[in-house]
Amino acid sequence: MRLVPVLGVIGFLLIVVGVAMLTALPFSYMFDGTDFQPILYSALITIAAGVALMLFMKRMPREELGVREGFAIVTFGWVVVALFGSLPFLFTGATTSFTDAYFETISGFTTTGSSIFTDVESLSHGLLYWRALTHWLGGMGIIVLSLAVLPILGIGGMQLFKAEVAGPTKDKLTPRVAETARLLWGLYVLLTAVETGLLMYGGMSFFDAICHAFATISTGGFSTKNASLATYDSAYFDWIVTLFMFIGGTNFALHYSALKGNVGSYFKDNEFMFFLISAIVAVLIVTLSISPGFYEGDVMRAFRYAAFNVVSVMTCTGFANADFAVWAPLAQVVLLFMMFPGASAGSTGGGLKNIRVLLLLKTGVNELKKLVHPKIVSPIRYNGRMVEQDTLFTVGGFLILYLITFSTASIILTATGLDIVTSMSAVAASMANVGPGLGTVGPMANYAHLTDFAKWVLGACMLLGRLEIFTVFALFSSAFWKR
Amino acid sequence: MRLVPVLGVIGFLLIVVGVAMLTALPFSYMFDGTDFQPILYSALITIAAGVALMLFMKRMPREELGVREGFAIVTFGWVVVALFGSLPFLFTGATTSFTDAYFETISGFTTTGSSIFTDVESLSHGLLYWRALTHWLGGMGIIVLSLAVLPILGIGGMQLFKAEVAGPTKDKLTPRVAETARLLWGLYVLLTAVETGLLMYGGMSFFDAICHAFATISTGGFSTKNASLATYDSAYFDWIVTLFMFIGGTNFALHYSALKGNVGSYFKDNEFMFFLISAIVAVLIVTLSISPGFYEGDVMRAFRYAAFNVVSVMTCTGFANADFAVWAPLAQVVLLFMMFPGASAGSTGGGLKNIRVLLLLKTGVNELKKLVHPKIVSPIRYNGRMVEQDTLFTVGGFLILYLITFSTASIILTATGLDIVTSMSAVAASMANVGPGLGTVGPMANYAHLTDFAKWVLGACMLLGRLEIFTVFALFSSAFWKR
Repeated sequence: MRLVPVLGVIGFLLIVVGVAMLTALPFSYMFDGTDFQPILYSALITIAAGVALMLFMKRMPREELGVREGFAIVTFGWVVVALFGSLPFLFTGATTSFTDAYFETISGFTTTGSSIFTDVESLSHGLLYWRALTHWLGGMGIIVLSLAVLPILGIGGMQLFKAEVAGPTKDKLTPRVAETARLLWGLYVLLTAVETGLLMYGGMSFFDAICHAFATISTGGFSTKNASLATYDSAYFDWIVTLFMFIGGTNFALHYSALKGNVGSYFKDNEFMFFLISAIVAVLIVTLSISPGFYEGDVMRAFRYAAFNVVSVMTCTGFANADFAVWAPLAQVVLLFMMFPGASAGSTGGGLKNIRVLLLLKTGVNELKKLVHPKIVSPIRYNGRMVEQDTLFTVGGFLILYLITFSTASIILTATGLDIVTSMSAVAASMANVGPGLGTVGPMANYAHLTDFAKWVLGACMLLGRLEIFTVFALFSSAFWKR
Repeated sequence: MRLVPVLGVIGFLLIVVGVAMLTALPFSYMFDGTDFQPILYSALITIAAGVALMLFMKRMPREELGVREGFAIVTFGWVVVALFGSLPFLFTGATTSFTDAYFETISGFTTTGSSIFTDVESLSHGLLYWRALTHWLGGMGIIVLSLAVLPILGIGGMQLFKAEVAGPTKDKLTPRVAETARLLWGLYVLLTAVETGLLMYGGMSFFDAICHAFATISTGGFSTKNASLATYDSAYFDWIVTLFMFIGGTNFALHYSALKGNVGSYFKDNEFMFFLISAIVAVLIVTLSISPGFYEGDVMRAFRYAAFNVVSVMTCTGFANADFAVWAPLAQVVLLFMMFPGASAGSTGGGLKNIRVLLLLKTGVNELKKLVHPKIVSPIRYNGRMVEQDTLFTVGGFLILYLITFSTASIILTATGLDIVTSMSAVAASMANVGPGLGTVGPMANYAHLTDFAKWVLGACMLLGRLEIFTVFALFSSAFWKR
């Protein structure tokens, strides 16, 4: 592993984050004002650190980026960015605990949306904006990562959409990554602007609208309100947010293709159709299970809550408009299981990703076929192309590492004294980057009461889930560090 | 699929079961007497049905058994045998519900050990003996199945120990299956006799000793006492049962090899070492987590309870000597997770089987290696031999089908109104053939309060888990039924 170019790229990321932090200042100025200086200083420190790293790299001999450097950039990038991103929380005095500040920030950048604040409405506006912005930056980072970087690294079946967007084709990280990133950046800004406009049209203030748009399109889930979307109790807002969560959970390569006029590409994509159909089935089951006993048989209301919460959990956003912890067990278990497949690859959403689940299901069915017809040769197809055995192996390996991480982290959390439902759902919700779980970390509760140790464990789970596990685990192999 | 030879074999199985049922009569005669006639009639009906099926087959043209007939015999065999096996429960009036009688019997034959009886001590002795005997017959059936039949069918990696025991080698079910079965039968009887003797030496009556021995060596879990082994509160009994549960959960091919003087073969076997080491680690964790807060720091007592319950869950026996539902969350979650890997292939135990978990872990680690070193060629080895890619695919397919079945059944159970913990743990415990779960089906509770529908779902889960899923699912493919 060559450390120099890695530090250089991380320096660049810090500059981007620092500059983004500055955009909170107008809100600080307009509203409370008290957080103006703390955020300004945080931004300047972040930018300065970034510039220092880049200058340091410039003085070093030029070195090319390879696969191993890719892993290091991705993992250390998120860790370091969250370190500087937690400064505003500490400098404003919103929390005095470094653990809490870091938890909130890594939860933001990984688009998880688990919070340690019990009363977000008491936070200053500049800080609330920065909190939502961490989601938005993280979401953008994930799209670039999964469409442009991960396919080269060959992670867990991600190479399957290598051809979807103009991206790099060689075994190196090339400038074409930057080109792809720019195209996606434009699309991301456009979608955010449209949602902000639609929310304002419904009567939300510009501040609340942009913060919620940041948290929706990035499938993050931080709200500016204590009761999240339930505060408004508005069918209009709920449906707008449901729609944009779904858009955020869809492969951005398909949106890009649709913008170029090829709208049919959504329906030709196996993963999108799987995502859509499972969403429809889940919404129907949840609607039917909550409409008689809850909401006095008001089917339309039940349908709205079902659609919102199913899409929120599937896309791993974590917004809430109702306390599903009191719903019928059937509705709860459907929501719990939807965390695992999660959203689409190449989206801002989390979970195992529908493409992997689809390939795994096809593998399962194929094995059944082979059992009855031992001599059959039936290759697995995805979007019409034959899937190589190697790809299926990395997808299988991914599932295995996911399950191991899930079990190990659940065991560690229960060792801190947390009950089983809270521990297991907190780990599942953190790894899938959903946010709220069940038990004492349910949709109307938060993560403030956990021990520092538990917060670090869950923070690590968020990062592992967000960076597709392999990326992080690769750093722990001795082979990784050899020259 | 050729139905005629299938019916013939099932007829033979019915005769075996009917004759075994007759062995309950001495106990009926000695103790209560009331159940003598009901059991006698049940046995005669079962034998008559078997003879009728065999005669019917004899008059048909001779046909060879192939792979598809193998699947049909295995699945229909268990279903039909449980049908006749439930007659004693109905004829004695122990229950008037056919659902309950069938649930108890399929739970017996699959060596699950979930019961619908709230007061087993009120049952007559002949019936209690028959209940324990269903475990013992089912356990023997499973050993023969997994050592002699499944490897030919190539199910989920089972072909890996094709060579371990003298078994069939061609793509047909041959008379050598019967030869293997006879050898294992002797070993099984021997182990049961030794455990019965050791329990009697400790002061247990012959009746209780043989019933507990049946339920231990088959890793079933039905006890003749309401409080299971907790009734005795004896360290001696607990350790004997722990030892024999472990023996029952070990590959019987290894016991066979040890009997022939090759004791070292245990420690050369990858699966056994994995099974042993994970048992030791789990026992240590559970001991440490319960010894301070429970049992007043009495470490030896905590160690005994930990060892007993870990081995009981790992081997999927389901005997209880303490109410682990009140233990520390860490201890509970370890017990919950140990249900999934379960015991060794070729044993009477259940779960995914350690051999599969080991191969899956190796696959996961291998994928990580390949990621850092894309050009590396590192084949996966098991017991020194290279494992073929096809084998890994069937193991992966098995895991996938296991998870799908688990999720689907959990969703169906919550739809009946059961809470999440009860539903999920009941499904996990049924599929792994453990017996008790958590929530309202915990180690000191039972399955009596479930709806009939839920009981049928769980019965199906027991069968799916016991027959390695593939065997049952294969019957649902259209290809299966073609000529």
